[in-house]
Amino acid sequence: LPTHIDGAAPIYPLPPTPRENRVLPEDLKTPDKHVERDPRLIRLTGIHPFNVEAPLSELYDEGFLTTKDLHYVRNHGAVPAVEDPSVLDWEFTIEGMVARPVTLTLRELIQNYDQATYPVTLVCAGNRRKEQNVVRKTKGFSWGAAGLSTALWTGVTLPDLLARARPLRGARYICFEGADRLPNGYYGTSVKLGWAMDPERGMMVAHKMNGEMLHPDHGKPLRVVIPGQIGGRSVKWLKRIIVTPAPSDNWYHIYDNRVLPTMISPEESADLPETWKDERYAIYDLNTNSAVCYPAHDERLAVGDGLYKLKGYAYAGGGKRVTRMEVTLDQGRTWMLAAVSYPEDLYRLAPDGEVLYGGRLDMAWRESSFCWCFWELDVPISRLQKAGDVMIRAMDDAMMVQPRDMYWSVLGMMNNPWYRVVIHNEGNTLRFEHPTQPALIPGGWMERVKKEGGNITNGFWGEKTAGEDSAPAQEAP
Amino acid sequence: LPTHIDGAAPIYPLPPTPRENRVLPEDLKTPDKHVERDPRLIRLTGIHPFNVEAPLSELYDEGFLTTKDLHYVRNHGAVPAVEDPSVLDWEFTIEGMVARPVTLTLRELIQNYDQATYPVTLVCAGNRRKEQNVVRKTKGFSWGAAGLSTALWTGVTLPDLLARARPLRGARYICFEGADRLPNGYYGTSVKLGWAMDPERGMMVAHKMNGEMLHPDHGKPLRVVIPGQIGGRSVKWLKRIIVTPAPSDNWYHIYDNRVLPTMISPEESADLPETWKDERYAIYDLNTNSAVCYPAHDERLAVGDGLYKLKGYAYAGGGKRVTRMEVTLDQGRTWMLAAVSYPEDLYRLAPDGEVLYGGRLDMAWRESSFCWCFWELDVPISRLQKAGDVMIRAMDDAMMVQPRDMYWSVLGMMNNPWYRVVIHNEGNTLRFEHPTQPALIPGGWMERVKKEGGNITNGFWGEKTAGEDSAPAQEAP
Repeated sequence: LPTHIDGAAPIYPLPPTPRENRVLPEDLKTPDKHVERDPRLIRLTGIHPFNVEAPLSELYDEGFLTTKDLHYVRNHGAVPAVEDPSVLDWEFTIEGMVARPVTLTLRELIQNYDQATYPVTLVCAGNRRKEQNVVRKTKGFSWGAAGLSTALWTGVTLPDLLARARPLRGARYICFEGADRLPNGYYGTSVKLGWAMDPERGMMVAHKMNGEMLHPDHGKPLRVVIPGQIGGRSVKWLKRIIVTPAPSDNWYHIYDNRVLPTMISPEESADLPETWKDERYAIYDLNTNSAVCYPAHDERLAVGDGLYKLKGYAYAGGGKRVTRMEVTLDQGRTWMLAAVSYPEDLYRLAPDGEVLYGGRLDMAWRESSFCWCFWELDVPISRLQKAGDVMIRAMDDAMMVQPRDMYWSVLGMMNNPWYRVVIHNEGNTLRFEHPTQPALIPGGWMERVKKEGGNITNGFWGEKTAGEDSAPAQEAP
Repeated sequence: LPTHIDGAAPIYPLPPTPRENRVLPEDLKTPDKHVERDPRLIRLTGIHPFNVEAPLSELYDEGFLTTKDLHYVRNHGAVPAVEDPSVLDWEFTIEGMVARPVTLTLRELIQNYDQATYPVTLVCAGNRRKEQNVVRKTKGFSWGAAGLSTALWTGVTLPDLLARARPLRGARYICFEGADRLPNGYYGTSVKLGWAMDPERGMMVAHKMNGEMLHPDHGKPLRVVIPGQIGGRSVKWLKRIIVTPAPSDNWYHIYDNRVLPTMISPEESADLPETWKDERYAIYDLNTNSAVCYPAHDERLAVGDGLYKLKGYAYAGGGKRVTRMEVTLDQGRTWMLAAVSYPEDLYRLAPDGEVLYGGRLDMAWRESSFCWCFWELDVPISRLQKAGDVMIRAMDDAMMVQPRDMYWSVLGMMNNPWYRVVIHNEGNTLRFEHPTQPALIPGGWMERVKKEGGNITNGFWGEKTAGEDSAPAQEAP
C-alpha cells in the first residue's frame, strides 16, 4: 500500500487488484511462451505477435485505472525475456549529442535519481481503426474502441535524466530504441528534445506499472512513457536513448505512426518515400476522441418509463483536456451536454510530499492533463425509442471538436469522427449497435450499411443526400 | 533598417512601407479624434468604438506582415491618448503574488531588460463570426474572415520579466489590465502563470510594432502580446500585471471570449453565471482555421483553358502548425492537397545574434509556431466550371481537422467549419460567392440560401438530406 504523509486513505484512485494469470495454451508454440496473459483479451493479429484490446465494457468497468490484465498491448514481434533476478542489471545508454554519455543499469536509475509516480493514459494510434477498414482497407489491423488504457507509472522523468546527460547545442531530437529485434531492425522512434526537457510534458522512463515491476508485454524491465502522445512513441524494453540533430531514421519511425493525406491510396504510398519522411505527417499528440461504452454493442433495453444512463470515455492529446461532451439523438441537429468527470484531478489534490510506489506523486504544479475522462448523460428511454441513433462528440480546450467526417488514411490512424450507436426498435426492446467490433469479429452498423449499398463515406452514415444517385457505396476517398 | 550580423540582406520578410494616415472626418466627433487611421478599414460596429478589419484581398496582398494601416482592431471603448513626449514615462506595475513587486516605466523596461523581436499573428476570437450570425444572431458583431493580422513585435518576454519579479508559491495565474476605462471597469483578463513562464510560448510585453512605436489603436505605448491565443488576451495600454492564485475576475474575462455549449441560447445565457465562470469554456488557444482569399467574393473568371490559382491563409493555435491544407470541388467526397508555405520559418534561419528593431531575433531554438501560413493550388478552370463550389479544410499537428459542421455558440466565437466559396456558372464567366461579407455588407451564399428556405445548419449547406421535409430553415441549434 502507498505511503501517505498524513496516514489517511488516499483521495485518488488506486488500481484494481490484478489477477494471477498463467501462460495460455495458444502462446506455448510462440516465442512468447514465457508471458502470462489474461484470456479475456481480444487478439487482433492472430496468435502472434500479441496485439490485443479488452472487451470495451470490461475496460470501462475496471474504472479509471486499468490492470495489466486488460491493458491494451501493441507488440511488433517477440517479447524480450528478462528473468526476475537480472532485472536490476538491465542496461541502457544515453548517447549522441550529450556532454556526458552514460551507460546506466536499472539499479543505478532507481538508486541515483528522483523517482516519480503519476497516471498516464496510453492510446494506440490505431484506436477505432476498424471503422476505417470497413470504409476502405488500410495497411493496419482492426482495433476497436478499446485501444487505450490507464496506469500509474513510476520512474524517472526525462528532464531529470537529461539534466545530468546535458544535451549539446544543436541537439533537437531524442531517439529511443527497444530490445525487440524486428524484420526492419530494432523498434525505434523519436520526439523533439524540447518536449522531453519540458516538465509540463511529463515524459519518463518507467520501471513500475500500477506499483509492480513491468509486465513483459509492457516493457519489462524498462520503457519510455510519453504522456499525451500516441502509444507508438512510448518505446518498450528500452536499450538506447540517443540525442540527435534530426528525427529518428528508424524504419518504424518513418513508415509507421503517420497520417498521410487522405487522397493517397495504399498502392500509391509505396512509391512516395519523401511523403513518408515529411515530419508534418508524423503523429505525436493524440487527437481528441471519445466512445460510447454503455449501451454496449448488442445490449438490449426494455422499452418503458424511466431513464437510461449513457456512458463512455473521452481523451485529448498534448496535455489538453476534454472540456465538454455532447450527445445528439437527431444526427447533429441538436445536442445535449453530458456530465464529465476527471479522476486524474484527484491526484493533484494529494498532500505535499506524497509518495506512491516509491515515487513522488507531485502533480499539483502541473497544468497539463494526460488521462482519459468519463462522461455520462441520463436520457429518457422514451426518447431513445424515438431516436434512430446516439452520437457523441468531444471538444478540447483548443476549441477543436471531433468532426462528423472520417479522415481516412493509408495507415488508418487517429480515427475520430463522432461515435455513432444505432438504435434498433424491436417491439418492446431496444437493441444497440456500435459501428464495428474489433478484429475480424462481425457486427456493427458500418458493415451492415455498406452491405446494404449505403455510402458510409458521405457524412450521413449511408443515408442518401440530395444529388446522390442510387449507385452502391464507392470506395473512399 | 535592421542590423544584420553579416551585413547581408535579410532572408526573412520585412514589413511593407506603411502609409501616412490622418485623422478621418468620421472620428472627429468621437473620443478617438487623436487617432490617425486608414480609410480602407471596414468598420464593424458603426463609427465608434473602433472595430475594423481590412478587405480580405487587401490583407492577403500585403503578404506575411500586415502594416498598422490594415491590421485589424478590436477596441472596447475610447483609445487612451498618450502624447509622444510622455511615452517613455508610461508606468505599469507587476504586483500580487510576487517576491519583488515593482513599478516600471517604459524607459526602464527598455533600458534594463533584454529586448526581443519576432512575428506573431493576432486573431480575434470573432474571426468569421458573420457566418454564425447568419445562422442565428449571436451576441457579437459580424467579423468577416479578415479578423487577423501579423506584425513584428518588439519588447520583453514574460519569462524574463517574471524572473525578476519572482512569483510566489501558490501563484497560478497572471492577470493583465489596460488603461481603457469601460462600462464594466478597465479591460482585463488572465492566462495561466505556467504558460507565461514558458519561453516556448513566447508571451511578451511589446512597445514596438513593425519597428515603430505602437499605434494608438494597437496599445500605444505598451501592450501584451500572447502568441497562439485569441487576441482578447493581448491586453493593450498595459497598466497592471497581477500574479494571482485564481483566474481574473474582471467582467471581460468572464463574460467575453468564451464558447458556451451550443445548446445555450442568448436568452438562457443571461441566467447562467456559473456556466460563464466555468474556465473550461474560456478560450485561450486559437483553434485551427482557414479561408479562401482568391477567388475573392464577386470575382469573375472567364471560362477557358488554363489554370486558376486558388489561394488563402490558415492558422492553428497554441504554437501548433497547420500541417496540411486540402481542397474539395465535390463537397468533401474527394480532396486535393494544396501547397503550404510558412514564411515564419525564414526568421528561424536568421544568423546567430541577429538584432532587429533593437530586439534579438532568436527563433532557431523555438519549436512553436505563432503565425499564419499560406496555401495555394492550381486547378484547371474547366474543373471549376463543373464544380458547384470550392471548400477547404486545414489539419494541425495535433491531427485535428476543421469540421464540416459549424459549432454555433452565444458569443459566436471560434467559428471554423470548412470555408466554402460557391461557383456560379454564368455563361462564359464564373462568379465566386464567399459565405458572407463583413459587418452589415450584404452578399454571400449563406444569406442567399437562408432566404431561399435552405437549411444552412444541416452540414450540407442548405441542400436537402434524406428524411428532411421541405420546411424552411430552422433556427439553430
